[in-house]
Parts: sequence; C-alpha cells; structure tokens
Amino acid sequence: MFMPVGTLASVKGVSQDVLDELGVEILLANTYHLFLRPGVETVRQIGGLHRFMSWDRAILTDSGGFQVFSLNDLRKVSEEGVAFRSHLDGSSHFLSPEKATEVQIGLGADIIMAFDECTEYPADCARVRASMELTARWAERCKSYFEAYKYEVSWTSTAAELRSAGRPRAAVPTRSGASPRLDGAEPRPHTEITQALFGIVQGGMDTELRRESAARTIDVGFAGYAIGGLSVGEPRELTRDIVLSTLEHLPSDQPRYLMGVGTPEEIAQYAQSGVDMMDCVLPTRAARHGLLFTSEGKVSIKQARYAQDDRALDPACVCRVCQRYSRAYLRHLYAANELLAQVLNTVHNLHFYLTTMRTVRAWIRAGDATGAGAR
Amino acid sequence: MFMPVGTLASVKGVSQDVLDELGVEILLANTYHLFLRPGVETVRQIGGLHRFMSWDRAILTDSGGFQVFSLNDLRKVSEEGVAFRSHLDGSSHFLSPEKATEVQIGLGADIIMAFDECTEYPADCARVRASMELTARWAERCKSYFEAYKYEVSWTSTAAELRSAGRPRAAVPTRSGASPRLDGAEPRPHTEITQALFGIVQGGMDTELRRESAARTIDVGFAGYAIGGLSVGEPRELTRDIVLSTLEHLPSDQPRYLMGVGTPEEIAQYAQSGVDMMDCVLPTRAARHGLLFTSEGKVSIKQARYAQDDRALDPACVCRVCQRYSRAYLRHLYAANELLAQVLNTVHNLHFYLTTMRTVRAWIRAGDATGAGAR
Repeated sequence: MFMPVGTLASVKGVSQDVLDELGVEILLANTYHLFLRPGVETVRQIGGLHRFMSWDRAILTDSGGFQVFSLNDLRKVSEEGVAFRSHLDGSSHFLSPEKATEVQIGLGADIIMAFDECTEYPADCARVRASMELTARWAERCKSYFEAYKYEVSWTSTAAELRSAGRPRAAVPTRSGASPRLDGAEPRPHTEITQALFGIVQGGMDTELRRESAARTIDVGFAGYAIGGLSVGEPRELTRDIVLSTLEHLPSDQPRYLMGVGTPEEIAQYAQSGVDMMDCVLPTRAARHGLLFTSEGKVSIKQARYAQDDRALDPACVCRVCQRYSRAYLRHLYAANELLAQVLNTVHNLHFYLTTMRTVRAWIRAGDATGAGAR
Repeated sequence: MFMPVGTLASVKGVSQDVLDELGVEILLANTYHLFLRPGVETVRQIGGLHRFMSWDRAILTDSGGFQVFSLNDLRKVSEEGVAFRSHLDGSSHFLSPEKATEVQIGLGADIIMAFDECTEYPADCARVRASMELTARWAERCKSYFEAYKYEVSWTSTAAELRSAGRPRAAVPTRSGASPRLDGAEPRPHTEITQALFGIVQGGMDTELRRESAARTIDVGFAGYAIGGLSVGEPRELTRDIVLSTLEHLPSDQPRYLMGVGTPEEIAQYAQSGVDMMDCVLPTRAARHGLLFTSEGKVSIKQARYAQDDRALDPACVCRVCQRYSRAYLRHLYAANELLAQVLNTVHNLHFYLTTMRTVRAWIRAGDATGAGAR
C-alpha cells in the first residue's frame, strides 16, 4: 500500500471525502509536527486522530525521529533521547523513546513507529554502528513502554461519552473495544484491541549492519518492521541494494514498510520486491509545484506549451481532474497562483500513485511479480 | 440569486463539482483579471469560459470598470476609455467600452456588463454628474458594439469542432445555436442565442443623479440593470437609501443586480426589497481569513477557545464541512496554515450564503417578503 502524507492531520488541500473517493486506505501523519501543533492533549481529549480529523480508515504516525534528525543545529542527541527546539518558535522540547511512544498512544493512530535515530549520510562505519545500536536500545525502550501503556490509547471513554451525548455530526469514527487501563485491572477480552507498534531497521549503507539491526529489532519483537534511514542523499542504486538486502532479513509474514520512498517507478518495483507499505511526500509536494505524474511521463504544468492545450492532463486517467479539466485550465490556475491548482494537482497525483499500487497488487495476485526476489 | 466570485475563472480553493453540489447557479468572473491572465485569446480559442473552466451553469463577467477604478495611480480616464498599467507587471493596457465588450464577447459568459466608471466616494456634485454622464455615453457605445458583434461570441465552431473530434472528457459545456457571423449573413433563427448585456446605473450618493442615470440607461436598453458604484466606503445606511431609491426607477420585469453587496443580512434584505442578483467577495475572502458565518453569528475560527471544541462549526448547518468536521479540527487547520482550512471554510461560507438566498426565495414565493417596497 501507498500511504499519502498528511503531516498535520491533513493531506494538504484535499478533503477527507475526496481521499475516501480516491481509495486511500491509510494516511501517514507525523508525531513531531502534531506534538507541536495542535499538541497531543488536544487530540487525546477529542478521542484520537481518527475522530479529530474525521477519518475512519487507517492512520500511521511516524515517531518524529526523522523530523528531529532533520532539525540539524536545533537538536542534541543523548542516550536518553533528543533535546530540540521547535522549528516554529524555538521553544525547547524533549523526545525520548518513552515520550514518543506516549505521544503516539495519545494520538491514537492504528500503527505507530518506534523512536529511532536516522543516521546521516555519509557516515563512517563506527558512527553508523553506534547509531544503529542506539536505535536498537531505543527500540527495546519503546516496546517496554508500549506494553505497559498500550491500553491507554485515546480511543476511549472520551469518544464513547461524546457519542452517547448524541452529538449531531454524522461521521464519528468508532473504535470498538479499547478502553483506558487507568483502573489497573486486567484488560477484558473485548478491550484488547491496541495499536500496532512497528520497529525500524537502521544501519546506514552497510548491509552487514542492516542485517544486525534487523536481527536485533526482530528480537525485540514488533507487529511490523520498517526500513528507515534511506532517501537521505545516497544514490538511487545504493538505496535499492540496501532495501533488497534488508528485506531478506525481515519476516515475510509481517508487514514490511519502506519509509519515505519514492517515485511511481520505485514504489512499483519495491512492491514487487516484497515491500508491503510505502509513504512519500513526492506526489503531494510535487503537485504543489506543478509537477504531475501521467501515463505519458511527467508533466510540468507551468509550461507555456500547455496554455491553449484543451486535452485532459492524462488522457488515460479516470480521476476527477482528468475527467473534467483541460491542461489549459490547470496551467492557468497554476500560473495565476490559484489555490485550486494545488488542490486539483494533488488529487491527480494521488490518484496516479494509488492506481499504480492497485495495478501492482493485481500483478502480484496474478503471480506476475517479476522482481519478487524476497517472496 | 447570489453569485460567488470566481475572479480568475475559479472560486478560490473550491472545485467545480463542489460548486455544483452547493447549488451554485451562476458564478461571477472578472474581465480585467482574465484579460491579463490567461488572456482573452486563450479562452476564446478553447470555446469560452464555460468550456475553459468546465462549468456548464451560468457565468457573469464584470466589465473590469470597477477593477480599473481600483488601480488609482495606475490609470488615466479619458472620453475614449481607460489607460492603465497591469497590477501584475506594470505593462500598459487600454480598455474602452468597445474593447471591454469585445473581450467579454470573447470570454463568452452568459451575462456581460457595460463598461462604466465607478465614481469615487466622496465626490462633489459636479464630479458625480460628469462621471455619471460619461458612464451613460459609454453605455451607448457598449450597446452599439454588442449589437454589431454579439454573434461572434466564443460558443462557436471551435467548441463544436472539438466536440465532434470525439474528445474523451466528460464535461463539455454545450451552447446550442450560437455561431459566428463572420460571413455577414443574417442570423438564422436557430443561431440567435446571444449573451445578455446589462447596463450599470451610477450617480454616486445623489438620488436625483441616480434617477437620471437609471432613465438614461433604460433609454439605451439592456437585458438587465445593475446598480454600481456602491460599497465604495460610504455608510451602510446611505448604501441602503440609494439602493432602494434607485430600484424604484428600474423595470421590475427585468433582472435588477446590486453589485458587490454584502453581508448575509444585507443580501436577505435587498432580495426582499426587489434585488434579483448580488455578488460579493465576503463569503470567500472572509473564509480565507478564518471568519465564518453561522446560524449563531460570526465565528473567528482562529480563536484558542475552539482548540478543543468538538462540536460542528454550525450545529444547524447541513453542509459537508459541518457534517464531518469539528471546530477543533477547523481551528487546527487554520492555526497550522493548512491549505484545507481555506478550502473547507470557503465551502461552509458559500453554503451559508446560498442557503440564505434559498430561504429568502421561499419567503418571497410564499408572499412573506416584508420589506418588498419595490415589488
């Protein structure tokens, strides 16, 4: 599956009913960003992210490790965790494996991620090993915290109370079963539904360290496994080598998630190689810059050549944008800096990605996956 | 009817299918802005605004008089027309009654407006009279040009050719009948459909000059009559006095259009007083600034008091925003500067305005119009 990125509990410019219609099955939101705005307490009070953003399909929250890593001069890493300053107002914060897990339990996504250190590229072998080992120790701490507090997920009495209060809004995402374990009692059978915690494999561009990281992460034991620390500036071929070699060390009967990748061609190739889940800002971010993916290749809609082009953006596409609007209109909206440009471009690009993934799934079901070395 | 503003052939942030769903019957677009971007030739080549923006309901284009008037230091008015510099790049342009009408015939809206001079406020009596008389002379020139060239409207063979070429897009706005009169032949009966040209009454805040302007505009003869030159800084009570006194001088069996007005209360009052058409940027512009109209009054969604407010924005509203999202989520989107804030806020405000107008229409049909002095 491909997960569109909704960093701040919104896929930029696209309303949830359009995401429904596009067939989005799972969204990615970001712990670091939501921790700063609107803050975990706001989301927890309302009953979790599903209810907050009115989205009853699945959500995954990244742990914030990658974003904190991106802060560069604003962060300081220690064994305990990461002290950092907000990119918004410079305020000081601290995320540790425990804190990141607590926040994600409060946000209440279906899948949450262990707090890891994303190793910079390039880095020498000693640095990569030390970083990988830190991530492995943090993985244990995330798992321990999660096991202790997983029943305090925000799909709770708050939401149930609001529902029973006869609130008139139509779409109330419901999560049956889960309730807080604040009373210390054993979880009752019907309240045992929890989030799924995934571990993250690091190890830089070293296949042996990747193997060791995979083994140590599997030893801790997670519901799924992610390959992190890629798309950090390395050549594409190296990304592919690391992904394929790491996949071999991850259990094929559990979800394998490749983080932050990639182009339509890459997601098709990785899916055929055994990757189950991917996310990437490319379709949404490129859309906002007028770069559109089509069956005939990439289109930069800002170009003057499209100014009087009355054809659909992608004649082979059945999305609501290609069904209704011309290249000339999309080019005009972009050139005139109209909000609708960003909206329509994003809808089309997401449709292209999701259609790509549906096609790959059909191939896999039909046994036609050609590059499926890991399956 | 209330006409949402789609200055550049787009209601900012709202796709045409949502406008359909909201029950928008007619949109307002702007000649000045479309003249600069994408330019009339682009729209004409594609077969007119309906086809360009894929909108098969009605469109009205304002003549550009008001926008040119707003340019202040960038314009120079003469008997012939207005020389001005583009607000985009400083390039020099000229609009005259003939040119503005030619451009509007090229854009191909259903209703087009005479090119007028919007008199500044305050202005002395001599200035208001001179300005009103200029507008009256320009009205004659617009009418003459329109009568000479009205069959050259852009709903033409271009669109028909594109349709017959079997283009796959679903939504091709069709305009039956109209064809260019370039051959000089008499219009055939089935090609006599043209645009409707409306005149504009000026006369500042002087009821006698307004009466005279109305009489002179009616003498020229138009398909409908607009009251222009209001909402230019005068007190609200004065606006109302001028509107009501001017309405009495306009034929009640033709459309009477009050330009650029107003709040929900104002549009309800004016509709009950006999105004048939209104447009205003308020619902869309206010939405982008987080100001929302509800059955309980105005809501500034940016306020911290809404941060954990799980209720619908307007519990009495059936729009797709109020049906799905909470104030807390809308507040978060606004505070985080998410694109979706502008999209959802605009949808709600338009729904509020259009529902207000539907309610007023029902009152009028039921004979309950209380302030209908002019009817």
